[in-house]
Formats: sequence, structure tokens, C-alpha cells
Amino acid sequence: MQIVGIICAVSSSLNVGKASPMVHIGACIGAIMGQGGSKKFRLTWNWLQVFKNDRDRRDLITCGSAAGMAAAFRAPVGGVLFALEEMASWWRSALLWRAFFTTAIGAIVLRALIDACLRGDCGLFGKGGLIMYDVTSANISYHLRDVPPVILLAVIGGILGSIYNHLLNKILRIYKLVNEKGIAYKVILACCISISTSCLLFGLPWIASCRPCPSNTSEPCPTIGRSGNYKKFQCPPGHYNDLASLFFNTNDDAIKNLFSKGTDTEFHHSSMLIFFATCFLLGAFSCGIVAPAGLFVPVIVIGAAYGRLVGMYVGFATNLNHGLFALLGSAALLGGSMRMAVSLCVIILELTDNLLLLPLIMLVLLISKTVGDVFDKNIYDIIMNIKGFPYLEAYAEPYMRQLTVCDVVTGPLQIFRGIEKVGNIVHVLKTTGHNGFPVVDGPLLSSSPVLFGLVLRAHLITLLKKKSFLRTPTPLGSDASLQFSADDFAKKGLGNGDQIEDIKLSVEELEMFVDLHPFTNTSPYTVVETMSLAKALILFREVGLRHLLVIPNVSGGIPVVGILTRHDFMPKHILNLHPQLLQSRWRRLRFKLPRLR
Amino acid sequence: MQIVGIICAVSSSLNVGKASPMVHIGACIGAIMGQGGSKKFRLTWNWLQVFKNDRDRRDLITCGSAAGMAAAFRAPVGGVLFALEEMASWWRSALLWRAFFTTAIGAIVLRALIDACLRGDCGLFGKGGLIMYDVTSANISYHLRDVPPVILLAVIGGILGSIYNHLLNKILRIYKLVNEKGIAYKVILACCISISTSCLLFGLPWIASCRPCPSNTSEPCPTIGRSGNYKKFQCPPGHYNDLASLFFNTNDDAIKNLFSKGTDTEFHHSSMLIFFATCFLLGAFSCGIVAPAGLFVPVIVIGAAYGRLVGMYVGFATNLNHGLFALLGSAALLGGSMRMAVSLCVIILELTDNLLLLPLIMLVLLISKTVGDVFDKNIYDIIMNIKGFPYLEAYAEPYMRQLTVCDVVTGPLQIFRGIEKVGNIVHVLKTTGHNGFPVVDGPLLSSSPVLFGLVLRAHLITLLKKKSFLRTPTPLGSDASLQFSADDFAKKGLGNGDQIEDIKLSVEELEMFVDLHPFTNTSPYTVVETMSLAKALILFREVGLRHLLVIPNVSGGIPVVGILTRHDFMPKHILNLHPQLLQSRWRRLRFKLPRLR
Repeated sequence: MQIVGIICAVSSSLNVGKASPMVHIGACIGAIMGQGGSKKFRLTWNWLQVFKNDRDRRDLITCGSAAGMAAAFRAPVGGVLFALEEMASWWRSALLWRAFFTTAIGAIVLRALIDACLRGDCGLFGKGGLIMYDVTSANISYHLRDVPPVILLAVIGGILGSIYNHLLNKILRIYKLVNEKGIAYKVILACCISISTSCLLFGLPWIASCRPCPSNTSEPCPTIGRSGNYKKFQCPPGHYNDLASLFFNTNDDAIKNLFSKGTDTEFHHSSMLIFFATCFLLGAFSCGIVAPAGLFVPVIVIGAAYGRLVGMYVGFATNLNHGLFALLGSAALLGGSMRMAVSLCVIILELTDNLLLLPLIMLVLLISKTVGDVFDKNIYDIIMNIKGFPYLEAYAEPYMRQLTVCDVVTGPLQIFRGIEKVGNIVHVLKTTGHNGFPVVDGPLLSSSPVLFGLVLRAHLITLLKKKSFLRTPTPLGSDASLQFSADDFAKKGLGNGDQIEDIKLSVEELEMFVDLHPFTNTSPYTVVETMSLAKALILFREVGLRHLLVIPNVSGGIPVVGILTRHDFMPKHILNLHPQLLQSRWRRLRFKLPRLR
Repeated sequence: MQIVGIICAVSSSLNVGKASPMVHIGACIGAIMGQGGSKKFRLTWNWLQVFKNDRDRRDLITCGSAAGMAAAFRAPVGGVLFALEEMASWWRSALLWRAFFTTAIGAIVLRALIDACLRGDCGLFGKGGLIMYDVTSANISYHLRDVPPVILLAVIGGILGSIYNHLLNKILRIYKLVNEKGIAYKVILACCISISTSCLLFGLPWIASCRPCPSNTSEPCPTIGRSGNYKKFQCPPGHYNDLASLFFNTNDDAIKNLFSKGTDTEFHHSSMLIFFATCFLLGAFSCGIVAPAGLFVPVIVIGAAYGRLVGMYVGFATNLNHGLFALLGSAALLGGSMRMAVSLCVIILELTDNLLLLPLIMLVLLISKTVGDVFDKNIYDIIMNIKGFPYLEAYAEPYMRQLTVCDVVTGPLQIFRGIEKVGNIVHVLKTTGHNGFPVVDGPLLSSSPVLFGLVLRAHLITLLKKKSFLRTPTPLGSDASLQFSADDFAKKGLGNGDQIEDIKLSVEELEMFVDLHPFTNTSPYTVVETMSLAKALILFREVGLRHLLVIPNVSGGIPVVGILTRHDFMPKHILNLHPQLLQSRWRRLRFKLPRLR
């Protein structure tokens, strides 16, 4: 789906990238492997069963995204870092190694394919090496006096990046309203964007004037084939239209043109300004339509145009050529928009193979990320926010320090006893949507009930499906492991899990008992009810939990007060419960200050 | 200290590296900043006070090591990754950004200094650019048939790497015994190693025969200056001694020679074999003497020699030159010894600036790390083990799943009440060495005592020092914050903390009371006593804790069972308590299997 979609979208000259869809494809492959193959397409492997648990599935998805990024930009190390910096909310040393393994294999296969293509004939695929936008100049030299223009470039880049994010935020919110109305609206929206893109691309080059071909060029001018620096468009022979050269190329070729050195006089600055403005708007408007669309490549193009512009106006004072300015401009806009420093640095390094520029690129990324962070959040947080995913922030909001976990626990708590009636379980599963239930031993009303553990909804459903019930409430003993294999409790694929409604039980069975002890996680993570919410959030994030049991502070009574899930930590939920926090000093500190600037 | 030491050690041609001492220097600077400057040398800054806490100090040390690594190899991104992969036992997204910031500034300053040196005159410092061992060939091409020799190289490299680790382990254990006898033994040991190194370096070149100078060389032959590829040694004019060329250079120059292309015929394979064996032994014996010694550069030299050897024997089948074999050999030995994949990959990339080789380097690192992991642990774990640092492994040992936290809690637990007698506090602080004490409210013997929090030893000592005691056991209220400022409780530097023995209290004062409530951490992390030890370890590691309170499963009674610290999770401590685990199936699974292979 995605693959077909992205080929269509990129080839229809929409201003979209291929990186993010590649990341998505990679993550999807990872998720499918985590589900043990896809039952729908009859692709199942038995050895994939070992991955059927939460942790491995998450790791596989992370590795998949790393591989996708690595494949999109031919940047294996950058892909690993991208996955870690942006995708993984939870990090382990082993994950780094696994992601590296994935992308390394990817890089080796890619290299082998390039090798095979160079020898044989793969048609157009044969072109292109490992490095996509090669800017290796024999000898790049820059001095201290080149630094101020670069800092200026970075600061404006950071501001532009956050303006881009802001624009994208507004546009995506409008698109969301449109898209929610139905599939027809989605298609109409996509068509509108596509048609207006085409109109702009073919209409704008008429504005630019024709320029005479340079005499000392290695390329034919005007260009004869499909891709080249000197498009003829409507010009007389011996002339070329510089705006058409930019618009009528693929994004990749445009980037290559913009990054290349020795082309300082090739483009007129009015053309570059038009190109920059068009790409900026098209990039923002093209994202969020129904077609799979990337963010990375458009931002690189916009940044390159912006960098060239800056180079044209202030470049005379430096000895950096305009191609390098374009490269630094891309870095600045990426930093200002995506806000990932390390992975962007490595990706740019791997894209351009220019280690000598590393200090300048690092400087630009540092400044543009810092400037961007003053204004708004990064682009991924914005999109995630619009889509409404319950993504936990790495940081606790300041007002969370004022609250204890007790303040956010809501709803009636459902508790199971160690040996529970079947009818009771069915009733609770049908009436609530919870995914985890605490199991308590001993009579509930006496003074010493004991917390035994946490049982998952999926496991309860498996138990009910197997129907190995007890007639009397007696402990099952150790023969439970004989009746069930580990495979029965393996994590089901998304949407493949059984529903409680599908299980039919007789009246007699409902009166029987089931021993939950062997199927309970006896070591759930717990917090005391007086624990600060901010610290509970850290525990939740760092250990990567799904359920967190809240136990009471005082002895006696029921040994569990509530269960926290990811939703309970979302700022929206907390502020609903405690609206007075919106006006409190803590919140103002965080939300008002940036607006003052 | 370190800086002087490493200059002496490297210049005395011991086979040691400069990377690890640089990392140490960086980490020390970080630690000093974390302590708010050094009181001893009258270097204190007030703005450094904000860093006076555990988390920031840890981050500063990590950033310092990253900067050290970056400076040693001029590899800023590699430095960041090294710090994350090897140094940080605890990782946050913000840490990545901070480490990047540090190394970026470092890279920019370094670049500026290089720039300044190239224009002015800094003597010998002016040489050398950002890339230390530049192997950029115009056009490296390799094909699928070059892969089998590379795989062979990587497998043997992994085996050699773990042999090196094993040898180092044995030697360090012997050295430790010698060094423990006193400072005189330390110096004698260092002298012995130094003298025997010198003897070997000057003696061995006599074995090698003289070789005639090649006719088509750009360098003068024999070499006239200090560094060069063709050392004359004892040879007649027009000849050179290849072994002397390797031995009589600095490590850096030797690596440059070995990595350079077009030198396939320069070295004889017997010379290379002697060089490899000598470096292997000297590298292992030079580490662990009293001088600060690095591991990185010797391993690169050994690896380069090893790679050249492999290149000489199997290189005829490929079209890779011997310089590339040397580079891949270094990668293989580094992977086999250090076992860090991603950061080594980036460091090698930044050292050599050869992006096209990336797939091969990744392949080599993958294989050599995997092969090495079969045999033993990585070199840093071995050293840490010998030094006896309580470093927590990222993984729980399998037998930990069999235990609950209750099984490892030892010793009598000291509990303070919310309002405690001064004499009692002094007694407990003097008789125990604990650093954290649970604070419990309400009468201890009634049925409902409440866990209030955890108070730290350092904070108790500060309280005692201020002597703001109460005559009667009444709560202090909110005026506590007026008496104390946050600075009083700021983390003291190592060795600067007050000792309980230094505080003199009168008999009258000992009978008074102190209200601990305002000074208690009310949100300590807790686990229930039935929690599996393995899961508690994960919590401990991921959140980065120092104390973990163990609370009882059953209601009633004292609301805290014990405190877990890092030492309680060490395998040694656990196996002391439960010797039967040594013989159990779980332990055998992990420790016996590798020996079978």
C-alpha cells in the first residue's frame, strides 16, 4: 500500500518526501514480524513466535524504522540514531545493537545490489552510489570570519523552521476537519492540492527571464535529457530558464543541483526566492493529504533554497561557495523543524560525505535547534498531538510535581480474588474496558488481604476460552502448566485477539471457579499513593510500563487503590480533573514565557 | 596529573594510547564542575551551584568523557556515541543533546585552533587536520567476491580480540597483586616494562633484513627527518629497514603508514608478523602499570598490523589494497575487544573519512563483536571487575528471576520517626554506614504506622550541624524553609562532606527533638517484598536509583521491610547469601555453555 502510494505521490511531483513513508514501511514490516507474520496473507513463520511479546515487538518496530530511514537516505548509522532519538520512547543498550545489526545488513545488501547493478543492467536503478548528494570538494577551507554569516543563517533557519511547524500545525488541523467528513472529501482535497501544485510548477517558470548559457560548462546547455541543470523551457536556443531547472527536476536532482559547487552564478536570486516561497508553501500544504507523504526531503529542498538565498546576499563576505550555503541552510531548517541534533548531523554527514564541514554543521544544528525550541515543539510532537496519540512526553510537566498519583486515579477499581467465579470475570470483562486487573488474596473485608499480582485481560480471555474450570474454589496447584503452553499466552497480533463477546459459556459454567494464581504476574510495578506524579511518570516511561499499581499508604483495607495507565498521565486528562492547575503559577511559568519573546 | 602523565607515557614510547586518559581527563573536568569547582585549588564558581545534584553531576561526567573521546580522536559524533554506549548506565534524550552540545563546542574550538595554527606558527602542532588517518582514495571499489576474505578477517579478529581481553585480564590481576604491595613496587614494575619495551623496540629491527628503496617514491628514501616510511637504521645507503620504520614512529604515524595505500610491497610479511606479535604483547603488558594508559590506540595498531598480515596472505584474491585490509583489521580487533558497534563504526568513519567503506566496516564490526561475545566479556567490564567497582549490569542474571527482593535484603533496618530524638539520630548515624533511612509516622507498634519517606544521611548531618532543635516533639510547620536554604542541602563534593564524628553536641542537645518531615523525600521509589529481583533490578537501573524501599506485602506492622542499594544487586552478594544458586540449573545455563565451545 505505502510503497505504491509513495511511488505515485513522488512521481506526481507533489512536494513530498520519501523518507517518512520508508520509515513507516520499515516499522510495518517490524510490526508484522512481531505478530509472527500476517495471517491474512498466509505469511506465518513458526520461528517468529519467539518475538510474540511486548518488548520484542517494540524493538522490532524501532529496528524497522531505523532500516527504513537507512534505506531512504542510504545512511545506516544515521538511521540507527534517528530511531533512537525520535522513535524510541524507551532505550536499551541491546536495542542500539539490534538496530545497528538491522541497518548494517541493510547497508550490505544495498551495496551488493548497487554492485550488481553496475555490472549488469538494472535500467535507471544503476545510477547513484552510496552517497546521495556528494559535495566532496577537494579542499574546503573556511576561516573564523566565515562563522558570523553561518550563525546568522542558523538563527534565521531556526525561526523559519518553527514558522514551518506552526504553519503545518494549522494546515493539518484544517485538513483533519476535512478528512473526517469522508473518503470523497479526502480524494477531492488530494486532487486540489495536486492540481494546484502542477499549475504552480508549470506557471511560475514563465515569470523568470531567460538566461544565456555559460560558455565554460561540461554539461550540455540547454539540457537535452530529462535531468540536468539547464532546462530550456520556453527560452530561445543558447538560453535556459533557471526556475524551470529547479522545478522540473525530482526533489533529489534539485537538491543535487543546489548543493553542487561552481554554480554560484547559475541561479538568479529572484528565481531562488520564488522557488523557496513555493516550496515552503507546497511543502506545508502537501503534507497531511491522503497520500503517504514525507517531511524530510521537502525540508531539505526548502532549506537548500533558503541557504542559497542567504549565500547570495551575504556570501560575498566569505569564501564558502553557494553550494555549501545550501547544505548549511538545509541543516538549519532541519534543525529548526525536526529538532534532532545528533541523528541529523550523522544523516547529513552520510548524505554528503563531507567530514571537514562537520564543525560548521554541528554549530548550525546547535543554534537552529535552540532557537526553534524557544518558539514551539518539534514537528513530530505536533503531528502526534493532532492525531491524538497518547504519547508520553519524556519530561514531566512542572505542575505534576504538585500532584500525587492519588489525584489522578479515576473510576471504580475492579479487583479479582485469587480464585474467582467465572461469571464474575465475564461480567467484569464485559462491562469494563480495562486491560489489567489486580489480583488480591484473602477475604476482601478482613484486615489482612494480600496483593498477589496483576492479571491481563488477554490472559483471562484465553483462560475462559480453554474452559478448564474448577467446580469448587480450591487451588489448582502445579498442574496448570501442563494444561497450557506458553504459546497460548503469546501476544496476539493487532485485531487478532479474541473478544470476550465471542466466548459462549453455559449457565453451569458461569457458576464454576477458576484459579488465577498461575496466570498472574506476581511482580507488578507499584507506587505508594503519596508518590509524586512526576516521579511516577519517570518510572512509567523509563521502565516502559503499561500498568502501574497504586498501593495505599496506610495499612489495613484493600491493598490496592488503583491502576495507572498511559492515559492517566496525559496532560489533557490531568487538567480535566484539576482545572485549577490551568491558572496556577506553575503552568503559567511554562506556557506564558515563550509567548513574551 | 593525568595530562603530564600521559605526555610522559606516550613520549617514552610505551605501547599505550592517549584516548582513555583523555576520556578520564574529560570526565574529571565534568566531575569538578559538578562539585562546583575545586575548593583545594581555590577554583569555585557560584553559577556552578546549580549542578550540585546527583543527576547533573552524572550528566556532566558523561559529557566530559564524550568531549575527551572527541578530542582524542577528533571525532565529535563518535565521542557522543561512545559516551552513550559505554559510559552511561542511564540514558535520557536530554543527555544525548547535552553530550552533543559539549562535543560540538569542542569540535568548533578545535577547528578554530587548527585554523589559527595554519595561519600563524604553533610549531609542530600546526600539522594535521580534522581527519587523523585520512585514507580517502579517489575511488574505492569492491565487489561481492571481496566479501569472503573480509568475513574471515572479522572472525579471526573477533577471536584475537577476546584472546587479548583474556590476556589483559590475567596480566591485570598479577599487576594488581604487585601494585598492592606499595608505591616502590609500582615504580619498579613501570620501570621494568618501560626498559623491556625499549630493548624490544631497538633490538628487534636487527632481525629484519635491509630492503632496497623503491625507485618511484615521492618520499625521500631513506627518511631524513624524524617521521617517515623509510627508516634507515643500520642499513647501507639506498636501503631501508621496514621493521624500524614501524617501531621508530609514534603510534599515530605507524597507523598512518599502515593505513596508507600504494604501500603493498613496502613491508615484508616476516617484519609485519614480528611487529604484530610485539605490539600484541606490549599492548597487553603496558596497560595497568602506574602510568595512565589508554587501550584504544594500541588496539588500533595491533589491528592494523593484523589486517596487513591477512591482506598479505589472502589479499591476492581481492582488489582491496593492504591499507584497507589494515583498516578493516583495526575495526575487527576493536570490535572483538571493545564490543561497541555503533560508536566504533562512527569513530572509524570520522578517523578515516571514508564513507564508501561503511558497509564493509559495519560487516566486520558485526561479526567480530558477535564472535567475541561468545568467548568473554568486553574489555571495560573486565577492568571494572578487577577494580571491584559495583557496576550494575544492564541485564539481570537468570537466577535473579528465582529470587524475590525479600531474599537479598540484609542487616537490621534503621527507621526514624517523623519527629525523632537527636541522641537517637546521632547514635544510628555513628553505628551504621547507611546513606538513607526510611521515615515512618505514627507509633511503631500500633496497627497503622504510615511510611512518610526517605531521609538521606547527608541531610541529617546538615540538620545536626545547624542545631535548630525542638524542645518538645511538636511539628515544625512551614517555617522550616526559612531557616534553611537549598544550598545547605546541595550535594557536597567527594570527600568534602561533613562527618558525623565532627559534630559536637551537648548532653542537653542530645535530649532534644528534630522534625524530619520537611527534609524527607516523600516520594521514594518502592517495591513490594514479593517483587522478583530481576524486575527490581530493571527499575533500579532504568530510573537510576540509589535507594529502593522494600514495603511489605501484608498489611499491618512496620510499613517498610528494608532498603536495597546497588551493593544488594551485585551477583557476588547474592551468591553469598544463596550459595545453592551456584549449582542450580539457571546458573549453569549461563556460565557453562560458553566454555563448551
